[in-house]
Amino acid sequence: MLTVQEALLTLQKFWTDRGCMVVQPYNTEVGAGTMNPATVMRVLGPEPWRVAYVEPSVRPDDSRYGENPNRLQTHTQFQVILKPDPGNPQELYLESLRALGIDLDAHDVRFVEDNWQQPAIGAWGLGWEVWLDGMEVTQFTYFQQVVGQNLEPVSVELTYGIERIMMALQGVSHFKDMQYAPGITYGEAFGQNEYEMSRYYLDTADVATNRELFGHFTSEAQRMIDERLPVPAWTYVLKSSHAFNVLDSRGAVSTTERARSFSLMRKLAREAGALWTDRRAELGHPLLKGEAPQMVIGQAVMPPSEGETSAAKVSSDQPQTFAFEVGVEELPPHVVGQAIEQVRTGVTDGLAASRLEYGDITVVGTPRRIVATVASVSAHEPDAETLRKGPKVAAAFDADGNPTKACEGFARGQKVDVADLVRAEFDGAEHVAVKVQQPGRDVLEVLGGIVEAVVGSLRADKNMRWSDPELTYSRPVRWLVALWGADLVPAQISQLRTGRTTYVHRTDPNALVPVASAAELTTLLGDKGIVLDPEARRASVVEQATRLAESVGGTVDFEAEWALVDEITNLVEQPHGILGGFEERYLRVPEQILTTVMRKHQRYLPVRDASGALMPYFITMANGDCDDDVVRGGNESVLRARYEDAAFFYDADLQVDLTELRAGISKLTFEDRLGSMADRSDRIKDVAAALAETIDLDASGRETLSRAGELAKFDLSSQMVVELSSLAGFMAKEYAAKAGETPEVASALWEMELPRTTGGPLPTSVPGALLALADRFDLLTAMFAIGAKPTGSSDPFALRRAALGVASILRGVDGVGAITISAGLAAAAARLRTQGVDVSDESVAAAQEFVEGRFHQQLRDEGISAGLVDAVAPLADAPGKAELALKDIEAVRATDGFAPLVEVTQRITRIVPAGTTGAYDRSVLVEDTEKALADRVDALPDHAGDGLVDWLADAKAIVDPANTFFDEILVMADDEALKAARLGLLQTIVDRAPKGIDWKALHAAL
Amino acid sequence: MLTVQEALLTLQKFWTDRGCMVVQPYNTEVGAGTMNPATVMRVLGPEPWRVAYVEPSVRPDDSRYGENPNRLQTHTQFQVILKPDPGNPQELYLESLRALGIDLDAHDVRFVEDNWQQPAIGAWGLGWEVWLDGMEVTQFTYFQQVVGQNLEPVSVELTYGIERIMMALQGVSHFKDMQYAPGITYGEAFGQNEYEMSRYYLDTADVATNRELFGHFTSEAQRMIDERLPVPAWTYVLKSSHAFNVLDSRGAVSTTERARSFSLMRKLAREAGALWTDRRAELGHPLLKGEAPQMVIGQAVMPPSEGETSAAKVSSDQPQTFAFEVGVEELPPHVVGQAIEQVRTGVTDGLAASRLEYGDITVVGTPRRIVATVASVSAHEPDAETLRKGPKVAAAFDADGNPTKACEGFARGQKVDVADLVRAEFDGAEHVAVKVQQPGRDVLEVLGGIVEAVVGSLRADKNMRWSDPELTYSRPVRWLVALWGADLVPAQISQLRTGRTTYVHRTDPNALVPVASAAELTTLLGDKGIVLDPEARRASVVEQATRLAESVGGTVDFEAEWALVDEITNLVEQPHGILGGFEERYLRVPEQILTTVMRKHQRYLPVRDASGALMPYFITMANGDCDDDVVRGGNESVLRARYEDAAFFYDADLQVDLTELRAGISKLTFEDRLGSMADRSDRIKDVAAALAETIDLDASGRETLSRAGELAKFDLSSQMVVELSSLAGFMAKEYAAKAGETPEVASALWEMELPRTTGGPLPTSVPGALLALADRFDLLTAMFAIGAKPTGSSDPFALRRAALGVASILRGVDGVGAITISAGLAAAAARLRTQGVDVSDESVAAAQEFVEGRFHQQLRDEGISAGLVDAVAPLADAPGKAELALKDIEAVRATDGFAPLVEVTQRITRIVPAGTTGAYDRSVLVEDTEKALADRVDALPDHAGDGLVDWLADAKAIVDPANTFFDEILVMADDEALKAARLGLLQTIVDRAPKGIDWKALHAAL
Repeated sequence: MLTVQEALLTLQKFWTDRGCMVVQPYNTEVGAGTMNPATVMRVLGPEPWRVAYVEPSVRPDDSRYGENPNRLQTHTQFQVILKPDPGNPQELYLESLRALGIDLDAHDVRFVEDNWQQPAIGAWGLGWEVWLDGMEVTQFTYFQQVVGQNLEPVSVELTYGIERIMMALQGVSHFKDMQYAPGITYGEAFGQNEYEMSRYYLDTADVATNRELFGHFTSEAQRMIDERLPVPAWTYVLKSSHAFNVLDSRGAVSTTERARSFSLMRKLAREAGALWTDRRAELGHPLLKGEAPQMVIGQAVMPPSEGETSAAKVSSDQPQTFAFEVGVEELPPHVVGQAIEQVRTGVTDGLAASRLEYGDITVVGTPRRIVATVASVSAHEPDAETLRKGPKVAAAFDADGNPTKACEGFARGQKVDVADLVRAEFDGAEHVAVKVQQPGRDVLEVLGGIVEAVVGSLRADKNMRWSDPELTYSRPVRWLVALWGADLVPAQISQLRTGRTTYVHRTDPNALVPVASAAELTTLLGDKGIVLDPEARRASVVEQATRLAESVGGTVDFEAEWALVDEITNLVEQPHGILGGFEERYLRVPEQILTTVMRKHQRYLPVRDASGALMPYFITMANGDCDDDVVRGGNESVLRARYEDAAFFYDADLQVDLTELRAGISKLTFEDRLGSMADRSDRIKDVAAALAETIDLDASGRETLSRAGELAKFDLSSQMVVELSSLAGFMAKEYAAKAGETPEVASALWEMELPRTTGGPLPTSVPGALLALADRFDLLTAMFAIGAKPTGSSDPFALRRAALGVASILRGVDGVGAITISAGLAAAAARLRTQGVDVSDESVAAAQEFVEGRFHQQLRDEGISAGLVDAVAPLADAPGKAELALKDIEAVRATDGFAPLVEVTQRITRIVPAGTTGAYDRSVLVEDTEKALADRVDALPDHAGDGLVDWLADAKAIVDPANTFFDEILVMADDEALKAARLGLLQTIVDRAPKGIDWKALHAAL
Repeated sequence: MLTVQEALLTLQKFWTDRGCMVVQPYNTEVGAGTMNPATVMRVLGPEPWRVAYVEPSVRPDDSRYGENPNRLQTHTQFQVILKPDPGNPQELYLESLRALGIDLDAHDVRFVEDNWQQPAIGAWGLGWEVWLDGMEVTQFTYFQQVVGQNLEPVSVELTYGIERIMMALQGVSHFKDMQYAPGITYGEAFGQNEYEMSRYYLDTADVATNRELFGHFTSEAQRMIDERLPVPAWTYVLKSSHAFNVLDSRGAVSTTERARSFSLMRKLAREAGALWTDRRAELGHPLLKGEAPQMVIGQAVMPPSEGETSAAKVSSDQPQTFAFEVGVEELPPHVVGQAIEQVRTGVTDGLAASRLEYGDITVVGTPRRIVATVASVSAHEPDAETLRKGPKVAAAFDADGNPTKACEGFARGQKVDVADLVRAEFDGAEHVAVKVQQPGRDVLEVLGGIVEAVVGSLRADKNMRWSDPELTYSRPVRWLVALWGADLVPAQISQLRTGRTTYVHRTDPNALVPVASAAELTTLLGDKGIVLDPEARRASVVEQATRLAESVGGTVDFEAEWALVDEITNLVEQPHGILGGFEERYLRVPEQILTTVMRKHQRYLPVRDASGALMPYFITMANGDCDDDVVRGGNESVLRARYEDAAFFYDADLQVDLTELRAGISKLTFEDRLGSMADRSDRIKDVAAALAETIDLDASGRETLSRAGELAKFDLSSQMVVELSSLAGFMAKEYAAKAGETPEVASALWEMELPRTTGGPLPTSVPGALLALADRFDLLTAMFAIGAKPTGSSDPFALRRAALGVASILRGVDGVGAITISAGLAAAAARLRTQGVDVSDESVAAAQEFVEGRFHQQLRDEGISAGLVDAVAPLADAPGKAELALKDIEAVRATDGFAPLVEVTQRITRIVPAGTTGAYDRSVLVEDTEKALADRVDALPDHAGDGLVDWLADAKAIVDPANTFFDEILVMADDEALKAARLGLLQTIVDRAPKGIDWKALHAAL
């Protein structure tokens, strides 16, 4: 059995054998190997760099006194940087796992989308977390940007999580039990360190001192930037970062302090990085020297390129199958379908634009390949003739019918005689023209063009660069197979060329397989177990999962799991279902926690019994054949570790009563000037109560609101939420119910966190909605008051989401629609002022404008036209009412008479001056037409407080008289009394119409 | 060729193969691998620990912008800790060199005494620096004490200097040129880092910030000690230490700040260490667990123990040679002779105390073995008879001649009949006695006892412990050979037992050699090239050196080099002379610098031409056969590097004029409250001038003093002195002379630093002596003024040495003996006060007492009796005068009449009350006796200002009259007038005697 230290030495040897340099861990605390300048600086600029090193990575937040089996304040990363991307980094990586003694045939190794970003240093990249039997053992990233600089060339970063890999390999369930070296365990070597440093980070680090250290470190970093010394500057950025992390683990960082600190560190990191880049340029990029080292990178072979565009000749005149495979590194699941569609469109359009004949087009794909097959593609295009347009006939010949200079010039330009010109109609006008012959192209030429166009235009929502100097896509495209019958279709896109070799499962002993002819490709892949068709894969997932669940008397609720099944379908090429179990005792933990872990972290399908209750099983889909027992064991131990954590926190939290938990949030700083989370909870309670006064809420509702308000956000101090912050609110409900609170109170505590995402579920009870509103009104008012409003690129306090939440609740929750934004903000402002916060009227006005703006944007995003949004603009302060108005409009807009009625109404609003009173002296009226209108108006009930439907029913009767009135009557009569009566008459119509509508806008929108 | 990274991986592999664990470098800056808690904490307490790791070690002071070929602010140590000492660490170490590809047959590897200590953490150990062809490549230490704790068991520490080893192995002369990894040099990998961090440490680090960091770090360390968390405490000790080092490299640490900081760090280190020890005990010493790992340590074999004390039988009755070898790890050169003498004494005394017969005793030795040979040692002691004493005869028999009860009891006790008792005289009285037979012992028993006694009592000035639980010596004793003829002499001392296998050169392919018989041992060792006799080795060194020097037409000045030749003789077992050269251009550098480097750093003999001038050659003595070219080349490159440094600094300094250098010392902080080194220089100048006023100094002397005073200590800002502080003063002389100052001024600048050691040379010129005195008076007065006086265990400012220097100069330099300590301190105090320093009278008095105390101790240390020291106590303020008085006493003490005269004088001082005037009214005297005395007294000249010799000549005439006077005259007459005259007469005698003598004390001392 490999010890931990042997593993580290093995990896060093593996990578140095492949041309990497070894450096030492950095001699100041770093949070990750990435932060060592051997990565973060060296990936900048054009110089090559290949390095491998161990990096003990310190994360004070992960301190657990050495008790948690999987969590350490210092964990060991093994870091590899390959710059530039060698073209086969996945293959090299898998070889390194073999070097560690991992049998890739037995285990299930998967590349699962994970897009790394580190905003604190302005860095991001695309890649994967690598799973070994369900455990994340390595972060694999193609760096795209670091310290805000685009990387050219791109670097590949591999970060091995040594403790996780070795726990799995050694089959131990606590990190302390790993054999670190012969005769000494990890716990014996580092246990005391874990305990003591945890004590420092969690309990004893002096907050004031570390805050001062942060200041000193950042100031030295800035000074070194000014001195143009990026290395010491970066060292101090790292020290700042560590001091910040210490403060954070001590719970001493408020939201604004965090934002301020991150902003400062990001700035320093960017400047240090820019300086490094400059300095390397000034030094003449020494590593770009002529005799650059030829670093040997691995024997891991890739499909060869064979396409030579010059010498291609078709070997047959008969139609043949065209097969085309785009070989990629694992695409994110949601990209697979998009890729299939893009290839389908590209091939279909390309063929359609050609003069080839062809049969059915089939496009399927997996995360590693998209395969298009076209039946019976003819060998050649037929020749064709087209016309090239010359001058109009009228301009081509003079009155005598002789060719004009324009005509002669055209013929000369086309190198034909005037006599050879023909006449033809273009866009309805007759022109002279010349016939042009188009010889048919060979199929290889046409298909090559299509291949190049398709590959070159592949795009996903997030795209990246890799070793290729020009291509850009979701993940690297590594090989292309393109065959027409037995002929290679030559094509080249940037440096990538087509070949006749495909690449099956990487673990196949003969992974690279020559393809004799196009017709063979899909068969061959199928024979190797690859299920190309996503529908077939999905069916296989469902079938296997069903069968496995049945084997223990259970089922899978596919209705509820469709999104997960879709994801799983596109995570593998060959679904291989494995049923695993976990100890029943974990079932006492709330299901939401268990299934969250299964779905979100592990992509496992939960198994349920006939009653729908969770069973102690899960189903995972490995990729292809493996040793089921090994893979099951690995996945079970991953889940066990996660459940053990969860159960521990859950049990621990249940020991604490709600009052104590609620008291605990007073230790959580919300924001320096705004007090603790407990202060915020108090404010939410009071603001919700104030809003409740403005609506109709029964006694029991008031009671629920009062109690839920007292407890608001109490679960933030629970261990479960500290650990899994996504469970905030859910745990409040859970713990409140367990503690004997009423179901209504428990629900309200959960509902106050809703909606959590755009379009997500809303509160259903009024108390829950009031708390949710109060939460958001407090946040918005407070942040605007202290000047922390969002900017174009930055919204650290998620105020946009809060504003959208306000709008969604007011629009969507019954019983609170009458509440206005201004009332909410005013209540929040008043409450904040009682706490001594200086809330200016300007800041409240700015918040109002912000929330209204978000509300309008929300409407637009839902597909509501700008016109309609404008039509209800007068209701911007009351999204609930605006919502009703919009529904009303939607309901009646197609009804006969509505549009004319609106037209009449808006016409009146254009004619009648503002301020006109809706009353008139009927006796003054003189004309019949106006008297007729007045009759109708007198009969029109007042619909000011009603909806459009009712109004339309009564008011449509005035449309004709009104239009006649407009046709025949001069409103602006010379006689002032008459004029006043006529204006008053018209205004009465408007006054009796529903309020809150901008009639002009509505008219324009219909 | 091995790259640097391959070497690191090779060493990791080598040591893990031998049971060491690998840890990572520490993640905060450390100055040495020792400071990593994997060493400094783990060597404490009883738990075993074997570890190997790379440690990039940061020494801000060594920053050279990456320009110096050998000096880096971050150098790479490879650290190994073997706890407990495995018994063969040298052998293991040499194996590791072989693993690095070092051919030990070709190279000269030596273990050169180096006693490591790190007062900053209360740590010390004994061991060696390991030389590879003259280059120090490894520090090899047996830790004895760390953080003030005695270590039990002892740990072996190996610290490889990777850059040095690899520069030698790769044959490059600048660290940047080393191949770090395939295709990348050390400079390419780390050059920018060296440059930038040097810029930080030397030029740009913010002093105020780093001072605050030091404060924060030490306060966190203290808090963590209070929290009982030794790991974070130690981390903060390390951070403090680094902050201190940064301040130091920025030249911002004053002498007192340094002392204060060290004291604080030492305290914190001790407390953290004590806490660690306690915590490990509380944890139950987990690594002492039952199933403790059996760590395999190497195949490096050692001579086996064979002695079995039980079954030993002599195989012959004939006298045989006794041969006895004590095998040790390399003793320090000065211990070899002591060891030979201890063994000689032990064997000689042991044999003398036996009844064996034996021939000549020969004891010789080398650094690795002491060998005693005794010719013709008989096989058995003869039997012997002794008498055991009973009661006195008078008590043994009653009047009737019958035995008393006492007699019978004695006989019964001795188990004999009364009739068997004999009579014998004991101490002049006749007793009854019983005859006791003493059977002779076997030779093996006797010799075994001698061996055990000799080995057990070996001691040196500095002794250490190692793997043996009881033995203590200068270095580990590793094997014993003891043979009488062909018979093994069994013996066991602690765990060490005798054997019949010796151990020749470690590089010998058959290093362990069985010894068939005692007579063979020295021959066998001689055949293996080992020159056992130090005289023979010395002769060989001289002969080879002479021959090698002659080969280039030179000589070695053995007169001047005797101490070095002695050292070399005991550094090797088989001197193998090699002549090396250096480039002639270095000869322009002052000889003192060149020879200091050769002698002190390299133990090379300088070669001179007929005129005595240095030639560009050196002679080194390798240990045994080697590849001369390889060893020469290695040594030459070491010397070249050192000379290149020296020449660089020398040339650079010569470009700077003296005024600028003198101005430069204003940047060197001496002490916060005492200003810069320039302020101190100013004070020295002024104090020296003030002292000059009190003595006779001619105009040219005054001129010299004035100019030298202006320049005092200017060389402290020169690069050479910054680099090699031992050259302070010498470089002042050198640079002053080169700059055209007079020889007197140049000399005075050197002399002001004298004496540098106890008993070292003193200034010879008065200006030099005055500056030297002023320097020391200033230091003493200043430090006492600010309360920084020495304590029992601590004298960070070397005030004892300063006080001794004052006394030595006043006693030993012509022309300044009249100066008193009080005058010097007063002048210094006055000058300090002009600078605003608060100098209290109490502090001056304390300094006075301190200097006088040192002066008296100095006299005692020179062997002068306490009585004589008391006799000149009145002259304590004037050591110059005291010196003369002592010489005077020495000169006359044996002269006839001196003692009686002193007796008379002291008798008077006892009789005559203090304050009596030395005058009398002769007319009052009445008795002849007193008149006779008065006649003599009247004739006695006044010798108050003279020496004892002159005084004795005149005053001896009063001895007899005076004694008669004492016999016959009652001084205290009733007649007051008479009494007054008699007292006045006696006092006159004392008044006319030399001053400054305590007559009572002198009388007692004679």
